[in-house]
Amino acid sequence: MATLTILYGHPEDPAAFEDYYANRHLPWAAKTMPGVQAAGLRRVLATPRGDRPAYYRIAEMTWADQESLQAALASEEGKAVLADTDNFATGGAVLLIGQEDEPA
Amino acid sequence: MATLTILYGHPEDPAAFEDYYANRHLPWAAKTMPGVQAAGLRRVLATPRGDRPAYYRIAEMTWADQESLQAALASEEGKAVLADTDNFATGGAVLLIGQEDEPA
Repeated sequence: MATLTILYGHPEDPAAFEDYYANRHLPWAAKTMPGVQAAGLRRVLATPRGDRPAYYRIAEMTWADQESLQAALASEEGKAVLADTDNFATGGAVLLIGQEDEPA
Repeated sequence: MATLTILYGHPEDPAAFEDYYANRHLPWAAKTMPGVQAAGLRRVLATPRGDRPAYYRIAEMTWADQESLQAALASEEGKAVLADTDNFATGGAVLLIGQEDEPA
């Protein structure tokens, strides 16, 4: 399984982020991003040490394999969805392409 | 669902990290960490822009709720497993406690 993890930094206006994210970005991404098999969306609440978390939100999408992930990111739809993050991710976003470990 | 995401920085010696991680840390964590319902382990391969990824590995554990997660992290077993990261995570580790969004 191939994964795309997005780590969102703390936005300037969390309410504006949440509104755009829930009502515009996610529905559009769910409809147009090709080949996504699963998605996990989580809000960061805390760290075990009690300090300020380095990130605000984590999103994770899964594809069957790296080829499918690469094809999705290279598609017009995928490029448009990724570019849309500039419209709400005012705290920046770290994108990481990963490969899930095989079960031991 | 409550999640603990660990973002590992690039280690000084990746082979030593992989050996300790696969053969000591993960089997021990799987055996002793209380209440974990699912775990995802992935190696970071790249970024969509082709620059050097900010992290080396991502690990993600899921508990039923925040109470179960907090109990696990506060347990002697949980504290020992988290402290064990100092034995191999030579590139540092960012720990984030999250809450999965309810499906819309």
